[in-house]
Amino acid sequence: MDIDLQDDERLDYLLAEDLRIIQSPSVFSFSLDAVLLAKFTYVPIKQGSIVDLCSGNGVIPLFLSARTKAKITGVELQQRLADMANRSVSYNQLNEQITIVEGDVKTIPKDLGIEKHDVVTCNPPYFPAHEASNKNLKEHLAIARHELHLTLDEAVQSASQLLKQGGKAAFVHRPGRLLDIVTAMRANRLEPKRIRFVYPKEGKEANTLLIEGIKDGKPDLKILPPLYVYDEKGEYTEEVREMLYGEN
Amino acid sequence: MDIDLQDDERLDYLLAEDLRIIQSPSVFSFSLDAVLLAKFTYVPIKQGSIVDLCSGNGVIPLFLSARTKAKITGVELQQRLADMANRSVSYNQLNEQITIVEGDVKTIPKDLGIEKHDVVTCNPPYFPAHEASNKNLKEHLAIARHELHLTLDEAVQSASQLLKQGGKAAFVHRPGRLLDIVTAMRANRLEPKRIRFVYPKEGKEANTLLIEGIKDGKPDLKILPPLYVYDEKGEYTEEVREMLYGEN
Repeated sequence: MDIDLQDDERLDYLLAEDLRIIQSPSVFSFSLDAVLLAKFTYVPIKQGSIVDLCSGNGVIPLFLSARTKAKITGVELQQRLADMANRSVSYNQLNEQITIVEGDVKTIPKDLGIEKHDVVTCNPPYFPAHEASNKNLKEHLAIARHELHLTLDEAVQSASQLLKQGGKAAFVHRPGRLLDIVTAMRANRLEPKRIRFVYPKEGKEANTLLIEGIKDGKPDLKILPPLYVYDEKGEYTEEVREMLYGEN
Repeated sequence: MDIDLQDDERLDYLLAEDLRIIQSPSVFSFSLDAVLLAKFTYVPIKQGSIVDLCSGNGVIPLFLSARTKAKITGVELQQRLADMANRSVSYNQLNEQITIVEGDVKTIPKDLGIEKHDVVTCNPPYFPAHEASNKNLKEHLAIARHELHLTLDEAVQSASQLLKQGGKAAFVHRPGRLLDIVTAMRANRLEPKRIRFVYPKEGKEANTLLIEGIKDGKPDLKILPPLYVYDEKGEYTEEVREMLYGEN
């Protein structure tokens, strides 16, 4: 199938899923965190509606399409990234299942429907807005990584608005924001139920947090086993290799 | 040295510390959680004041005495347990360093001094009060394990009142209460800074939570490496053996 690649875009493999995705080092490439979130989140198998907020180049919808037959909507603020995501969806012939919407997460619930969805995933910008100016990032990367157009509170609020009662929201973030995210979740009727901490390797502090909450759920938080990214030789652990490449 | 043991009391070893402690299976025996807390908490090495709330038979003050020359006060509501702790302190000839006070954690700050102490440790009752009635526990055990006379919020509040600005409070609890404890800490000026989850073994959910906060500290939470209690053979891991027995 032909594909229109722009500038420094590449057509990369999502190996574990036998899919391909358009990436660009100067604009946006997906992170391991997005893959971890796509594997961590609950999904309905056969039907339902999933919304992925801050979708970037669409990596989470693409990964999720291998786990579910539910409809998936990816929401991305940046036109250039939404366009990359759209072309990847078309290339993989997933237009029936995945819709990419160019829009603002803060206002998207009224467009996609309030309390209409079963699952929301979100890999939001991690870093405070004020840190962006020091970094000389290109604008696309600055918006994706820093809370310039979307704060954590706003992301959590939109997720909750989209969800039906009993629906599930899953986020990935930095462990240093644990208290902020659980506070925002509870303030928005999302009761935290499962947390998994991701450690770069054994003996190190966690550097990533995966958290799932249920809208209007009862308090009953579980801390899942830790996930290690690298082994003592500096190579991906078996669990991460399996996620990325489908290897055992 | 002679010692007066009552009923089914035993004089057990605190092996790693070359100390002995009076225990009674029907009244109170210390748990691994207390040992984990005594090892997890920061202590000043040379001087200062440490208060251990919900001290039981004094296991945490005894363990801490091996790590610090600071004065340590153990607070225990139950006369029988405070008496056991006192006799253990005397047996180990630690009366100069450790004082056991029979008192109520809720009102003890005004007796021990508001904002006078450097560190507070607390292994509080874990279980809701309403669960105690189903369990047919002897009263001593019911009070130690259930929130009959002290809620988590009250324990956190007293800890904060005792601490100087910049002082540290360390708690051990169940992971299911993570959100309650961080909420209570922040409401009482104790900013969570270090969390360590304890897992019974690899691949299982965490069953214990260690958390330390700093009074009026800045937000900067670290999630420490996981601690596993048992290895795949069902024996204590090296790290736990070292804590309990001083073995490497």
